[in-house]
Amino acid sequence: MKPSMDLLADVMDDHFHDHCGVFGIFGHPEAANLVYLGLYALQHRGQESAGIVSAHERILHIKRGRGLVADVFRQQDMEHLCGTQAIGHVRYSTAGGSANQRNLQPLVVDTVAGGMAIAHNGNLVNALMMRRKLEERGSIFQSTMDTEVIVHLTALSRRTTFSERLVDALEQVKGAYSLVAMDERSVIGMRDPDGFRPLALGRLRDQGYVLSSETCAMDLIDAEFVRDIEPGEMIVIDADGLHSSFPLLRRDRHLCIFEFIYFARPDSTIDGVNVYEARKRIGARLAEEHPVEADVVVPVPDSGVPAALGFAYAAGVCFELGIIRNHYVGRTFIEPQQSIRNFGVRIKLNSTPEAIAGKRVVLIDDSVVRGTTSRKIVRMVRDAGAREVHVRIASPPTCYPCFYGIDTPTRSELLAANHSIEEMRDYIGADSLAFISIEGLYRAVNGMGGYCDACFSGRYPVSFVADEELSRSVTLLNET
Amino acid sequence: MKPSMDLLADVMDDHFHDHCGVFGIFGHPEAANLVYLGLYALQHRGQESAGIVSAHERILHIKRGRGLVADVFRQQDMEHLCGTQAIGHVRYSTAGGSANQRNLQPLVVDTVAGGMAIAHNGNLVNALMMRRKLEERGSIFQSTMDTEVIVHLTALSRRTTFSERLVDALEQVKGAYSLVAMDERSVIGMRDPDGFRPLALGRLRDQGYVLSSETCAMDLIDAEFVRDIEPGEMIVIDADGLHSSFPLLRRDRHLCIFEFIYFARPDSTIDGVNVYEARKRIGARLAEEHPVEADVVVPVPDSGVPAALGFAYAAGVCFELGIIRNHYVGRTFIEPQQSIRNFGVRIKLNSTPEAIAGKRVVLIDDSVVRGTTSRKIVRMVRDAGAREVHVRIASPPTCYPCFYGIDTPTRSELLAANHSIEEMRDYIGADSLAFISIEGLYRAVNGMGGYCDACFSGRYPVSFVADEELSRSVTLLNET
Amino acid sequence: MKPSMDLLADVMDDHFHDHCGVFGIFGHPEAANLVYLGLYALQHRGQESAGIVSAHERILHIKRGRGLVADVFRQQDMEHLCGTQAIGHVRYSTAGGSANQRNLQPLVVDTVAGGMAIAHNGNLVNALMMRRKLEERGSIFQSTMDTEVIVHLTALSRRTTFSERLVDALEQVKGAYSLVAMDERSVIGMRDPDGFRPLALGRLRDQGYVLSSETCAMDLIDAEFVRDIEPGEMIVIDADGLHSSFPLLRRDRHLCIFEFIYFARPDSTIDGVNVYEARKRIGARLAEEHPVEADVVVPVPDSGVPAALGFAYAAGVCFELGIIRNHYVGRTFIEPQQSIRNFGVRIKLNSTPEAIAGKRVVLIDDSVVRGTTSRKIVRMVRDAGAREVHVRIASPPTCYPCFYGIDTPTRSELLAANHSIEEMRDYIGADSLAFISIEGLYRAVNGMGGYCDACFSGRYPVSFVADEELSRSVTLLNET
Amino acid sequence: MKPSMDLLADVMDDHFHDHCGVFGIFGHPEAANLVYLGLYALQHRGQESAGIVSAHERILHIKRGRGLVADVFRQQDMEHLCGTQAIGHVRYSTAGGSANQRNLQPLVVDTVAGGMAIAHNGNLVNALMMRRKLEERGSIFQSTMDTEVIVHLTALSRRTTFSERLVDALEQVKGAYSLVAMDERSVIGMRDPDGFRPLALGRLRDQGYVLSSETCAMDLIDAEFVRDIEPGEMIVIDADGLHSSFPLLRRDRHLCIFEFIYFARPDSTIDGVNVYEARKRIGARLAEEHPVEADVVVPVPDSGVPAALGFAYAAGVCFELGIIRNHYVGRTFIEPQQSIRNFGVRIKLNSTPEAIAGKRVVLIDDSVVRGTTSRKIVRMVRDAGAREVHVRIASPPTCYPCFYGIDTPTRSELLAANHSIEEMRDYIGADSLAFISIEGLYRAVNGMGGYCDACFSGRYPVSFVADEELSRSVTLLNET
Repeated sequence: MKPSMDLLADVMDDHFHDHCGVFGIFGHPEAANLVYLGLYALQHRGQESAGIVSAHERILHIKRGRGLVADVFRQQDMEHLCGTQAIGHVRYSTAGGSANQRNLQPLVVDTVAGGMAIAHNGNLVNALMMRRKLEERGSIFQSTMDTEVIVHLTALSRRTTFSERLVDALEQVKGAYSLVAMDERSVIGMRDPDGFRPLALGRLRDQGYVLSSETCAMDLIDAEFVRDIEPGEMIVIDADGLHSSFPLLRRDRHLCIFEFIYFARPDSTIDGVNVYEARKRIGARLAEEHPVEADVVVPVPDSGVPAALGFAYAAGVCFELGIIRNHYVGRTFIEPQQSIRNFGVRIKLNSTPEAIAGKRVVLIDDSVVRGTTSRKIVRMVRDAGAREVHVRIASPPTCYPCFYGIDTPTRSELLAANHSIEEMRDYIGADSLAFISIEGLYRAVNGMGGYCDACFSGRYPVSFVADEELSRSVTLLNET
Repeated sequence: MKPSMDLLADVMDDHFHDHCGVFGIFGHPEAANLVYLGLYALQHRGQESAGIVSAHERILHIKRGRGLVADVFRQQDMEHLCGTQAIGHVRYSTAGGSANQRNLQPLVVDTVAGGMAIAHNGNLVNALMMRRKLEERGSIFQSTMDTEVIVHLTALSRRTTFSERLVDALEQVKGAYSLVAMDERSVIGMRDPDGFRPLALGRLRDQGYVLSSETCAMDLIDAEFVRDIEPGEMIVIDADGLHSSFPLLRRDRHLCIFEFIYFARPDSTIDGVNVYEARKRIGARLAEEHPVEADVVVPVPDSGVPAALGFAYAAGVCFELGIIRNHYVGRTFIEPQQSIRNFGVRIKLNSTPEAIAGKRVVLIDDSVVRGTTSRKIVRMVRDAGAREVHVRIASPPTCYPCFYGIDTPTRSELLAANHSIEEMRDYIGADSLAFISIEGLYRAVNGMGGYCDACFSGRYPVSFVADEELSRSVTLLNET
Repeated sequence: MKPSMDLLADVMDDHFHDHCGVFGIFGHPEAANLVYLGLYALQHRGQESAGIVSAHERILHIKRGRGLVADVFRQQDMEHLCGTQAIGHVRYSTAGGSANQRNLQPLVVDTVAGGMAIAHNGNLVNALMMRRKLEERGSIFQSTMDTEVIVHLTALSRRTTFSERLVDALEQVKGAYSLVAMDERSVIGMRDPDGFRPLALGRLRDQGYVLSSETCAMDLIDAEFVRDIEPGEMIVIDADGLHSSFPLLRRDRHLCIFEFIYFARPDSTIDGVNVYEARKRIGARLAEEHPVEADVVVPVPDSGVPAALGFAYAAGVCFELGIIRNHYVGRTFIEPQQSIRNFGVRIKLNSTPEAIAGKRVVLIDDSVVRGTTSRKIVRMVRDAGAREVHVRIASPPTCYPCFYGIDTPTRSELLAANHSIEEMRDYIGADSLAFISIEGLYRAVNGMGGYCDACFSGRYPVSFVADEELSRSVTLLNET
Repeated sequence: MKPSMDLLADVMDDHFHDHCGVFGIFGHPEAANLVYLGLYALQHRGQESAGIVSAHERILHIKRGRGLVADVFRQQDMEHLCGTQAIGHVRYSTAGGSANQRNLQPLVVDTVAGGMAIAHNGNLVNALMMRRKLEERGSIFQSTMDTEVIVHLTALSRRTTFSERLVDALEQVKGAYSLVAMDERSVIGMRDPDGFRPLALGRLRDQGYVLSSETCAMDLIDAEFVRDIEPGEMIVIDADGLHSSFPLLRRDRHLCIFEFIYFARPDSTIDGVNVYEARKRIGARLAEEHPVEADVVVPVPDSGVPAALGFAYAAGVCFELGIIRNHYVGRTFIEPQQSIRNFGVRIKLNSTPEAIAGKRVVLIDDSVVRGTTSRKIVRMVRDAGAREVHVRIASPPTCYPCFYGIDTPTRSELLAANHSIEEMRDYIGADSLAFISIEGLYRAVNGMGGYCDACFSGRYPVSFVADEELSRSVTLLNET
């Protein structure tokens, strides 16, 4: 009867996941401390590892490690991270194997032009091809991160300034990237021409600038939001101030619409749209598209709460916290040998029978990925005495994997890719199941276009080649 | 510009706090694994330290440590905790000094009657006096926990069985205790005659019994709730089954009413009252007692959410998540030197201006202790553009410290003990401030009496002597 | 082909082992720092765990942990250990099971007379009987250390001062103890009436006194050796100075003679006899008693070196470091699956063939316990090309276990207890094997009596009862 | 009175230090386990960090960390290091700043030709110039190790096989290197044309080959020594067996003569000369060159012991272990505020007055670097009662820094570089001081030439340019 230690992600966290968050400060005597706080506020974008790099007199000071921000950085580390400019990164906690010591960010190297550091949110679609080209001309790779390709291309540029060299590099790559980069004299924020991932600019009250994946991190450090970096825009901040340019071929914006469904914190505002309000509107739209006779609307916490509020107000049905979330959940837990019904989901969620029993329940969740968790939640709600369980999903069916920096299962694992709505309903055991339409989602978010919805529609804004053959040419460097 | 590492509790967590949670299993081959999961579900009752003791063939196996349950127990520890009976404990995370290596629970000792372990939730009011008596007859103390007094008195008893000896001990102490204790053959659950702290009995689906501070922990392990242990009741579980008795002088129940306001998880049911429903009723009652013209009702998350829902429904005002909580918050954080407006509270909470701006806001919080956090939250809500801020508190003013196991500031630090409502309103900067009445609270919880409300009323159900002089006789053993 | 992590002690360290070292400082502003250094110098007496307790204004500050002194105490720990008096303890590293969190020393408790701490080197022979008696009157035990018996008896004493109470306790126990104890006002050194274990008194250059198991620790802190504590002597050091008394029935000295053979550091002097010189004389005597035609004398390092020098000079044979010791050896190592000849011993020792090949070698070791290591060493020396290998042992055959605080195998495991010299020679594969005689050992050490030689002779100076039945009455508290 | 935590190296370890040891295995199912043991035996060559890389089916498995071999590798790490070939590295423990997370070895990268790993003992003299050239063509650097230059040059080669590419790289660098390198199919051992650092080849009993800095590591794993790799020789081991070649311009051997004086373990044999025997001959020669009337010869342990034996036998004076070394010394210790005479040296060494008092002592040490430790040791020996102290040094005066991989102070810190023998004698407080001559040293080691003696003579076999200006072009990446 040996118990086993399980990763929570394996058994229960059935979501798409963002890969990371980035943050930067220029021109403040406590740059690294403010980056630390910024990462603290961006922790929801990545819990596997965190890193900060500061620059001071030709030295780049680095501290990176696995774990949460609060665990990685001790006071003595912060004292070493001196200088008035710093950048940081949090990385998503994927299960098991990928916890590789080599893939910590920011990536830091020394080149002929001096030291540089780069923190990257997103994914390049031609990274392997570029890596092969670079290796063929003699470049060496010390990680499996696509970010290392950008660094090599920057080092190879013949142009003069850091920003010009970085542009040289970015002209050769395709895909999604919101970058915060730094040499010894400047901090750069750059969002790819599609604007897949968010990136915002702010100003500190006293002095200095902020770059952040989300605005919620500016609030924590009392910075003033200035504006979103535009798709394809590069912001260079140095002793002369702030310089904006659009160095790459312009394209239409394709902001990842999943930021509004699940990734971003509700108190953030992305490209002018507040996430909390968008989620409420999604819920309201869902109620219009798929009404149902019910007694209570119950969210799957925490992500489903705003949509459930929107649904409840639109439908005129009572909102109830019929499911309670345990927030003291670590990355692992001991699983007993004996089978426990709905175990896994119960580590994190528990029902409140008093709010559910005998009622017709509308259960609001943000998405259905593999469906395994939804199935357990529905069963838990039924066990709590619900008379009917109607599941309403605040996103369209996710039928296609993402290649722009979101951790998704392969197509064969996506429930919606291989099953009809009715089959899905049957699988998760609900009385009814409905998803918001893609059109409805667009309307709810901002009534206009400009989003990447490839995971729903299969329409990929940036084309890519199958990397399978290429990936065989990479030697895996597996450092534990 | 050296940053400082601060304990979160010092700057922001302005609440009363419970001291602990207890859990026990008898008669199951995976006893310790189930206790582990039980503690996982009781983590909200204490985050400083955790411990499990199992019994197997005259050996008590022990693992205790500082930190969260998920961090204290590794898989190899669990493999050592063999046997079919086990008990566990989680302890509240107080700031700074009290993180004493000596005060880990369960307390485990060897006596003439064999080994025993005890996990204690509550506080004795005559512990120091009894300690002095025991020391005078030659007893030695290895901790500063009052629980050690119970252990000594048990060891000194001339009676035969473990339960009789424990009763002998409990006849000599006064105060609050919900205990889960164990010798090599039995597990005992005991609730003091006032029933200050909760304690419930459950049955495992296959075999075996469960004792738990709260019912939410039974849900996780798929155990069936049987009933609450009654005030003054002792439950002995051994190979012969389950035995109930009321060995002490019976008294009226005085369950801590703060369990319903803040301590317990909303999915728990205590003495027949579901916590989530009680909190909603408190909110509704608050709306009746202190109505206000407003546009939105906003909870201080997470504890204020159910009361805010109740208030919103009763008042017919829209409920909004106008404040978002960051759940990735560790025990410490690096505080920058530069002053940041409302820092501290912002580490954990942030406003959503879109839901608040230009509106008359009713802010629902569970309690006001020192008032420092309330003040910052009100200011943050105003900064987010609220037109008016009306604060409604889901508990009466807390004017008196607790002596029954709750961590409260001294009377001089309690804002309500020294200020009028108007002065408090002025201090926290609200447009209006109101508290539910004691009578209203009673009605909301269950419409009847049976609660300890000493922190509001100063009516202490169990009398005590000033311990100051006595405490000087204790040598502090400070182990780091 | 899964490698296994082995404890070094299991495969290779075939010696008797001392259980611990004790150290104390009174009257110096850096008391704990000096104790830290003292323990550093006494590390050879115990590597499992270390602890320091200091006293300052009714608070006993404690830091204890498993591992070497250099690993247990961090700078921040030392800063907490304030006060002008402190005591410390190092404990022997036994393999596997005994690394029990509960059995750390110094033992610290609070009693009616105030806090007290005690560090104990030695073993009581009536501990279990006294424990049963104490438990019968209601005492509780939190460890399995016999030292806890002394603490209980001290607490029970009706006498006034700490020293009187401690004497009361010691009158009831039998066996070996060199104690350094402390209450809030005094530090006490006490050596049992047989004087089994050493204990010395020193004076610091500026101010203050030192108590130490060995004089080598005084040298490190620049303290002046004053004299050995005599058997049965109690030294009380407090604000009034130093007080000596002989409170117990006087007996003849029985200092453990193994201190001179193996335990003590060669730069220490015990009861007037320098260890290095004694070991050289033992070697010389061994050469006289058991001469052999040979080309080189080779010690098993490090303990065999002085005896080998003595042998070489007496025999007029060349001394060679034919075996080299690797000093960077941790507590564990990874053992490969493949069989490696003489593995285990080679982790620590390697031969220098150039010094051995073609030669008749006299190999000098301090003792033969199980004989397993000797066998491997002889084989390694033969593999290095030795023509003959003559083993000479600097102690008589060890036929009996020790009950006074030395970790010895049971009688059945002692090679000499069950085999003739010839059988032993055959087992270890030597050309000849000889041990120094008991009489020769006495002469070599100091030419007089006054030693415990029970492990050789079976003459136990303090009688004891078989504890087997009693030990069954103890519940093992196994904390990991 | 705050104590300070000091690095031992700062106060006491006044020696030249080797930078590292390398080890490799090809063709054995437990390759990584054997490398682990090899590093265990080479630990004296470097205690700061350790690393192992194994290759298995296009994956290079890596484990590196700071600390001793026994601490860096846990059993679970070893289980991950699968495959039949592996290489490893131990790195010297320099004080303070250089403990940089970035500079761990083996260095591992992915290139167009696949993954490669390299472990390097030595130092290149044109590394910065080559680095600048490489950076100018676009290469990026992720560490400050000169080894990274070799890796880049290898990646840039247009030749086909790993060994050819490595040769291409080595043709462009100058300086000292004994390398063990690996791609997915082969293990390579390469010694620079001067043969500055040792490197030996061995064969495992069952199957497979061994490469090791020293032969002592072969003994531990029961491998058979085959021969030393010759200066300029490359050994390639792959599925086809072992291939030797001399791909670079041949030069005369310049083996670092300090290996015999201090670095190597005495049980190793380098280029046919046994270290223990060489040290004894050095001692004998020293006695001839600088005889002195004395009563005892006392080594500074452990390195001075063989030379002291040689001196004693040659001079006919008695050898005594008059100084005892504490082997339980960690990397740091707590230093008290109060001044303690000869503190620092006493943490590690203590005198045995009985062996010294009243005597004329010849003190044998391996070298005098800054002289600070020698001064303390002489004073300690005088404090122990020595009548005269004559210091004899087993190496010539060290007047010049090393540029080939040995950690030496700058010229201004070398006592011998700026003082006459008489001034040095006066500084260390000896009655006489003498060093072996360079010629005598050569004779003692092997009677022939072939050594680098630049630290004594200033004759540097490989020329180099002042790197100061170049080093300013490197951005320091300081990762903690």
